[in-house]
Amino acid sequence: MGEILKLDHVGIAVKDLQNAIKLYGSLGLQATHQETIAAQKVNAVTLPIGDTKIELLEPMPGDSALAKFLKSRGGGLHHLALQVDNIEKKLSELKEQGIRLIDETPRSGIGGTRVAFIHPQSTFGTLVELVERKAKGEQT
Amino acid sequence: MGEILKLDHVGIAVKDLQNAIKLYGSLGLQATHQETIAAQKVNAVTLPIGDTKIELLEPMPGDSALAKFLKSRGGGLHHLALQVDNIEKKLSELKEQGIRLIDETPRSGIGGTRVAFIHPQSTFGTLVELVERKAKGEQT
Repeated sequence: MGEILKLDHVGIAVKDLQNAIKLYGSLGLQATHQETIAAQKVNAVTLPIGDTKIELLEPMPGDSALAKFLKSRGGGLHHLALQVDNIEKKLSELKEQGIRLIDETPRSGIGGTRVAFIHPQSTFGTLVELVERKAKGEQT
Repeated sequence: MGEILKLDHVGIAVKDLQNAIKLYGSLGLQATHQETIAAQKVNAVTLPIGDTKIELLEPMPGDSALAKFLKSRGGGLHHLALQVDNIEKKLSELKEQGIRLIDETPRSGIGGTRVAFIHPQSTFGTLVELVERKAKGEQT
């Protein structure tokens, strides 16, 4: 069975990245990495916390899944990302169990990762992302 | 400054705890602890993942904040809990910074913790809980 290694990150939708960075700074968390994911029209900032991270996500101008979420719900908790050892294996297992996937094959995520989303209809409303961080055969 | 030690847990609202436990089992996560928090009318189950936990929260019959959330939004990500070393100190600092608190003094949480919630109006829509796990002066 494809193994879950840890909670990779929690994704939070925000309207204004700079205001959000300031708020989380007040709470005691510091931003260490900023990245634009052009394919998803998202500006992302990561805040390490323990062995996991909070990812603040601000939509770039134009239509996107994230812009739609912010429009309908306002900002807030957006998704949960589980780090797996083998994303293809995990996706194949979930599909066999009848779990609905948004991505049947992995796509590129932040920081050179490979990611895939599970459909919230199969997870009682929680958007769950699978993340594989290392390349196949790479030493950790 | 009151320190954030790690991500204590991510709280997820679910309508049916047993179905949710089964789903997260399919994903690869196992429930290790179940507890009823009568004061909040909540049945909670914890699923360890890395150095943090997912907390599945099912409302008990009757009115509660969680039942209201499920009614308006359906199930899904509910709150983010940050583990702190000194909850009174952290609450005092946040108050000084003008951050709105739901609980100005800590109350009892799951597993003998002391907890307090920050108002989502001050955190751009994310419900944030502070958790202190050890008693004052206790050795970790």
